[in-house]
Amino acid sequence: MALLSVTMLPPAFISLIYRDGGGVSFLMSFLFCLIAGLLFWYPNRAEKSDLRAREGFLIVVLFWSVLASFSAVPLLLLEQPNLSIADAFFESFSGLTTTGATILTQIDGLPHAVLWYRQQLQWLGGMGIIVLAVAILPILGIGGMQLYRAEIPGPVKDSKMTPRIADTAKHLWLIYVTLTFACAISYWAAGMSLFDAICHSFSTIAIGGFSTHDLSMGYFDSPLINFICVFFLLIAGVNFALHFAVLNSRSLRNYFYDAEFKAFLGIQFSLILVCFIVLASFNVYQSNFDNFEQALFHAVSIGTTAGFAGTSAGEVAFSSWPTLLPLLLIFASFIGGCAGSTGGGMKVIRVLLLYLQGVRELNKLVHPKAVFTIKLGNKALPNRVVEAIWGFFSAYAAVFVICMLLLLAAGMDDLAAFTAVAACLNNLGPGLGQVAANFAEINDFSKWVLVVAMLFGRLEIFTLLVLFTPAFWRT
Amino acid sequence: MALLSVTMLPPAFISLIYRDGGGVSFLMSFLFCLIAGLLFWYPNRAEKSDLRAREGFLIVVLFWSVLASFSAVPLLLLEQPNLSIADAFFESFSGLTTTGATILTQIDGLPHAVLWYRQQLQWLGGMGIIVLAVAILPILGIGGMQLYRAEIPGPVKDSKMTPRIADTAKHLWLIYVTLTFACAISYWAAGMSLFDAICHSFSTIAIGGFSTHDLSMGYFDSPLINFICVFFLLIAGVNFALHFAVLNSRSLRNYFYDAEFKAFLGIQFSLILVCFIVLASFNVYQSNFDNFEQALFHAVSIGTTAGFAGTSAGEVAFSSWPTLLPLLLIFASFIGGCAGSTGGGMKVIRVLLLYLQGVRELNKLVHPKAVFTIKLGNKALPNRVVEAIWGFFSAYAAVFVICMLLLLAAGMDDLAAFTAVAACLNNLGPGLGQVAANFAEINDFSKWVLVVAMLFGRLEIFTLLVLFTPAFWRT
Ligand SMILES: [K+]
Ligand SMILES: [K+]
Repeated sequence: MALLSVTMLPPAFISLIYRDGGGVSFLMSFLFCLIAGLLFWYPNRAEKSDLRAREGFLIVVLFWSVLASFSAVPLLLLEQPNLSIADAFFESFSGLTTTGATILTQIDGLPHAVLWYRQQLQWLGGMGIIVLAVAILPILGIGGMQLYRAEIPGPVKDSKMTPRIADTAKHLWLIYVTLTFACAISYWAAGMSLFDAICHSFSTIAIGGFSTHDLSMGYFDSPLINFICVFFLLIAGVNFALHFAVLNSRSLRNYFYDAEFKAFLGIQFSLILVCFIVLASFNVYQSNFDNFEQALFHAVSIGTTAGFAGTSAGEVAFSSWPTLLPLLLIFASFIGGCAGSTGGGMKVIRVLLLYLQGVRELNKLVHPKAVFTIKLGNKALPNRVVEAIWGFFSAYAAVFVICMLLLLAAGMDDLAAFTAVAACLNNLGPGLGQVAANFAEINDFSKWVLVVAMLFGRLEIFTLLVLFTPAFWRT
Repeated sequence: MALLSVTMLPPAFISLIYRDGGGVSFLMSFLFCLIAGLLFWYPNRAEKSDLRAREGFLIVVLFWSVLASFSAVPLLLLEQPNLSIADAFFESFSGLTTTGATILTQIDGLPHAVLWYRQQLQWLGGMGIIVLAVAILPILGIGGMQLYRAEIPGPVKDSKMTPRIADTAKHLWLIYVTLTFACAISYWAAGMSLFDAICHSFSTIAIGGFSTHDLSMGYFDSPLINFICVFFLLIAGVNFALHFAVLNSRSLRNYFYDAEFKAFLGIQFSLILVCFIVLASFNVYQSNFDNFEQALFHAVSIGTTAGFAGTSAGEVAFSSWPTLLPLLLIFASFIGGCAGSTGGGMKVIRVLLLYLQGVRELNKLVHPKAVFTIKLGNKALPNRVVEAIWGFFSAYAAVFVICMLLLLAAGMDDLAAFTAVAACLNNLGPGLGQVAANFAEINDFSKWVLVVAMLFGRLEIFTLLVLFTPAFWRT
């Protein structure tokens, strides 16, 4: 919490540089969070006990929800834009969960401090996610992620939980910061202003999707910038533990030993191909280069769950592409990035294992007495992991249906409700129909439902769901 | 096949009674099917070998698709209505799979022979389904249905496959015919003409949804008829093997020892309650009795996947109910009836086991080292069954998404595409939007996609899917 308060200082500083009057609210929030943080920390400073699984769930959920709530404070205190409580929480949760859905409409006119703050929220969210996904969820065993328990990077295997997580975090964050730096430099070199370059590098590496412009990446109207964005999105959509392993072994071949990595690239490539073929056959853009650029950009942007838009003013927006494509890409966002990346969705590895299990089912029907095992690389997969992934899949579907019914009950139309839930649960960002550009027009109840959906998505359903079981609270 | 040809005679006979000129095509089809049937049967008459699992799949798939294709012949030969090939196949598959979706628009004006034939298709389809679901799928082990292997009724356990299926069929069909008889008498006593009473008893017990009137059950404008329909739908939505067990033990208590039966009633009751509360609070119908009658009728009609409509002319149709309800009921149709009933959907038992497995996952997260088993009644459930159900669930989702994308690619709008696939895959019948009343307006390609969806739904996905695996065709 005290750490969070420090994160309020950069936007205040930015505000000073640009003299646009947003600084006071960030300074006030800094003080507020610092005091609240110290109040929380002071009575607990002596407790250095090691974590147990049950406390793990509680801490992860509290960490995200409390942090996101406090992050809403500066947005609430702002005079321009003047946000309601629901709006401020929506924007703050959307930032920290790297969803990238926004309730703001005229982004270009906002103070620089606010713009910076939104991007920074996503970047910090991304940092949280990779540690959560690489180190914490495997230990807790969420949705089959015990699979990765042995692969957590760092020298101290089998040590206690707390120091191990800290050690892993250090390694991953170094990669994360380096990538952000490389991305910012590339954007800058490609013609963005320094401010825009840094801001967009934050939301690119975090696969967040927030932008400092209403037109998102389309504002720059530059194929080069779009290609850079695609390149870094594909890197950020890969398991950071795999990046770490490649760095450690200094051999790029490790990428291609990884089944999830291959499936991830295969899925993105197929999406690009389908989009290009349809766009070209409908002649949606002026040249085939434009068709290719737009297909590439949006397939990867939606497929990795970033949610950037890449069409400049006057061009056909993604949400108006021939019927099939927008929904196809929204469906693809259910797959999302690799486990241990900053991407959302159900993760490539889970979908891959579901597919392999489906194939095994079919083989078993033909040869009822034979024994089939699912292999990943050259290790056989324990049944326990497969079971846990099935559980994850159906819980995902159940949360999806419930959220969608709530939105319908609140009066949203079918397409908007379906895609809004998909956009938030998959931490994607934009939907279709009423919520294609932003979420400003929906009512407060719907916003709260979607805030919960974002949190469910980011905490991989079970981390949050487990708190609602009686067994959890029994001592 | 020769048997099928005999089924062409009743409509020809009906045609004679009503002298409406539809008889010739049925007589011609009779001869055609008889000859084709004899041609198939004659060279194979000596083969009386017992079935193996692999041949089982092929025979089941061929049985349904060949039978439904031949059933399309009389519809093709008709002069009034004059149907295209796609239309005739759609109607015939919709009948035999008891889906009840229709491409016909002015049903009231059709010859009695055609009306009778459509209803009879559903009734025969229902007969096929209960044997398929109670005896054949458990032996083949489709989607966890090996669970019921020990419960197949009939005296000869562990005997060879063919005589055992024949024996089971005899028992179940007796119940089926008795129920149809009771239902027809009730309808007749409640004021239907004898022809309508018999026709609707066919489609009620088969949970089919075809009617002899454009307004479906709403034509009769009679709460009593609606209540009778609900009563028999609830009976037909229960596992016929359970009916058999109750009859055998002469104790109604057996129903309430059955977890699936209780869950089925619980789901239907909740649907009725939600519909009634929403209808009453929106004052959709004139009195609260009307609100209750409509809520009861449509909740059960859609929830059991019958798909009858029950609103008379001038009243608010089901598809125009406040937004939430139509989609809620469409979602409920994914659950559908009990296994071994004539209902469609994924079946109550599978959803129940998915739910229990979800609860187990959560408990395992809290107590990672404890061992939890799923109990059904007082038997522990083997892991193999749970795995197979997960496989079923994801294959269902995959088939759903692919069919929906195909319809979108063919130019259907989102709501229609979503509900059309749900209506056909769940063997429900009516969708929403463009396909709320009938499927006449959609293009031929979409009709073929939906025909395949109906077959996938009725054969519980895997029976059909397994034919597409290389392993199946390897000797
Ligand atoms: K995003
Ligand atoms: K039906």
